[in-house]
Amino acid sequence: MALVVQKYGGSSLENADRIKRVAERIVATKKAGNDVVVVCSAMGDTTDELLDLAEQVNPVPPEREMDMLLTAGERISNALVAMAISAHGAEAWSFTGSQAGVVTTAVHGNARIIDVTPSRVTEALAQGYIALVAGFQGVSQDTKDITTLGRGGSDTTAVALAAALGADVCEILSDVDGIYTADPRIVPNARKLDAVPYEEMLELAASGSKILHLRSVEYARRYGVPIRVRSSYSDKPGTTVTGSIEEIPVEQALITGVAHDRSEAKITITGVPDHAGAAARIFRVIADAEIDIDMVLQNVSNTAGRTDITFTLSKANGPKAVAQLEKLKEELDFLTVLYDDQVGKVSLVGAGMRSHPGVTATFCEALAKVGVNIEIINTSEIRISVLIRDAQLDDAVRAIHDAFELGGDEEAVVYAGSGR
Amino acid sequence: MALVVQKYGGSSLENADRIKRVAERIVATKKAGNDVVVVCSAMGDTTDELLDLAEQVNPVPPEREMDMLLTAGERISNALVAMAISAHGAEAWSFTGSQAGVVTTAVHGNARIIDVTPSRVTEALAQGYIALVAGFQGVSQDTKDITTLGRGGSDTTAVALAAALGADVCEILSDVDGIYTADPRIVPNARKLDAVPYEEMLELAASGSKILHLRSVEYARRYGVPIRVRSSYSDKPGTTVTGSIEEIPVEQALITGVAHDRSEAKITITGVPDHAGAAARIFRVIADAEIDIDMVLQNVSNTAGRTDITFTLSKANGPKAVAQLEKLKEELDFLTVLYDDQVGKVSLVGAGMRSHPGVTATFCEALAKVGVNIEIINTSEIRISVLIRDAQLDDAVRAIHDAFELGGDEEAVVYAGSGR
Repeated sequence: MALVVQKYGGSSLENADRIKRVAERIVATKKAGNDVVVVCSAMGDTTDELLDLAEQVNPVPPEREMDMLLTAGERISNALVAMAISAHGAEAWSFTGSQAGVVTTAVHGNARIIDVTPSRVTEALAQGYIALVAGFQGVSQDTKDITTLGRGGSDTTAVALAAALGADVCEILSDVDGIYTADPRIVPNARKLDAVPYEEMLELAASGSKILHLRSVEYARRYGVPIRVRSSYSDKPGTTVTGSIEEIPVEQALITGVAHDRSEAKITITGVPDHAGAAARIFRVIADAEIDIDMVLQNVSNTAGRTDITFTLSKANGPKAVAQLEKLKEELDFLTVLYDDQVGKVSLVGAGMRSHPGVTATFCEALAKVGVNIEIINTSEIRISVLIRDAQLDDAVRAIHDAFELGGDEEAVVYAGSGR
Repeated sequence: MALVVQKYGGSSLENADRIKRVAERIVATKKAGNDVVVVCSAMGDTTDELLDLAEQVNPVPPEREMDMLLTAGERISNALVAMAISAHGAEAWSFTGSQAGVVTTAVHGNARIIDVTPSRVTEALAQGYIALVAGFQGVSQDTKDITTLGRGGSDTTAVALAAALGADVCEILSDVDGIYTADPRIVPNARKLDAVPYEEMLELAASGSKILHLRSVEYARRYGVPIRVRSSYSDKPGTTVTGSIEEIPVEQALITGVAHDRSEAKITITGVPDHAGAAARIFRVIADAEIDIDMVLQNVSNTAGRTDITFTLSKANGPKAVAQLEKLKEELDFLTVLYDDQVGKVSLVGAGMRSHPGVTATFCEALAKVGVNIEIINTSEIRISVLIRDAQLDDAVRAIHDAFELGGDEEAVVYAGSGR
């Protein structure tokens, strides 16, 4: 008998009918002899509706109250799923994140889990109940206020619960049936992967794959929780994320997949006087604005002793970053701040590139062959990423996928969804 | 500086605009120099929408989960009001019933408040915040599960908080601007009362007046909390419920008002053998079904040693009561169970009737004059109630209101609302 944690995303819980189907799935898992804990996101549109209501009463709502408001969504969905389970022949209790012992930092809207003490969940399981736990939320250790966990919060809740309960697996169920060698909507012969080691999944998530959130994969790796990515609409086994690349014999390590990311923009500060401290000043100003930077490129300075500094960041932070840099113009005496939001990032991930020289060459040749120019290149031990024109992203993904022969024979089944 | 508790009902919180107006009202109360605690019901349609969703996934939802589901409604409204307050120049924190220290019995859907320990509310006030508390809910002392308080639960939350905080007043704000000598929609010259003592308000509430719920008035009387019934749309002073009829000099005690009730039905068990224990058996069966009984009438037995027993109950319980009684037919050997849901109750309330003989006579003459037949009569020290045909209720209310000269000179301002 196994202990299974399942997480269902918002589109799998969009209305009463889907909730009933999810309940059937959960009851079947229980009747197969497992202890079952389920984490539900809010129903499809609920969070957006609540955000809209909030904006109507206050364009800049206090964060504490935003967390009180949004957590109502998960409360509703988990209670409804518990009710549906009861109508399908099993019994269930729903719990808020706080009731389930999810203790967090005090940062509203982006709290981190400090600890999970799920005694009420364990008690429910011991009494033969299925336990529902509201995702995306917890209670602050310091203030005892309710907090939300930021992006991917429900995935993180599920993995953290699985770790605390010593679960055998944490299943993430959505409208995709696994992790593919590339986005099947771009690459029709993308192949579903059976298994992916943690480090590769981390790179895929950081490179634009939306199926699993980076934080939940980090958590799973740290505590050794196997994650299974499956469809909530079928019984297919999905993709298992587990194990380390260190456990794979060097000669068997492969190239795993291609990820792409349209969410970044590029900023170039031109004509920066090439003296010690200029770059540090620029990056400190960006960091103080709480903006994360991804890829960086600094050119060799020209004959006038000036250089260009380029970096990428999330489009959402673009305007704020530009504003902060403009304020530095006089102090640093640079020429201009250029903003370019028509860039895209494509990445190749695989432990195999550690032991296969020539991967970088093959990668760049594949792009050159389809006329894609590389603007910035950035690598790790198991990943190559390049910044290109976003209009060329689809071509680039397909070219790399073909060059490394990642495709399968059958056409991928493409759902309307994107992993939510 | 006073400590004011305000409760806003669902129709005062129906949408973002109304929420903003309520927030303005709250901030004005605070800026007048008061400490302010606010209890909000769920927004207008929320509870019904949640009930509808619940029914779609399970026609007989488990009560524990129903409480988890419904309490999301108050969470949403209180967080939104807190946000709106923040946009109007004050600061506010919202709390669930559990966070505010509302401790209850374990009866889901109809929990009773055992204790209120509002330390987080007191702390918020001490820091200059307005405190919002979700109405209609608490946490079970035994199971630590979330509970809801049944009908009038938000009023009860507000009064209980006011008692625990030693508030100067508990204001119940809705879409009516006070308590009237009769329902102004039936009696155009009904007069708004300035003050009503607790015992009379209890009788009015028990007799069909929907403005305040019986339980909250009982709680207020026990702890000496003055209640003020006011409109959320104007600054009019409303009606204050406070004080005892014992404090009113006998010669000043008056007839206060007329209440009516369309929610009851009448059951008659005919041909009951007139022996000891028959009535007891009937009422025990009804009590075991957890059905409350209001008026009772037992006729003198006829020559055949049989009698009819008649009682009234809420229409909602009618079918269940009939079913339970039918099961008794063989055991008790009665003739039939008759069910009549076209009855109505009209009541006259006032401490003055204790010292004014002839009130009953005047009451019955007024009804006779408009051709209303009395089917059952029931009295207390300060109330006369009669059961009549519901089609005649409006005539009866007007006739009694006129007979006791309760009307004022000006036409009552009639809102669309009914005290919610």
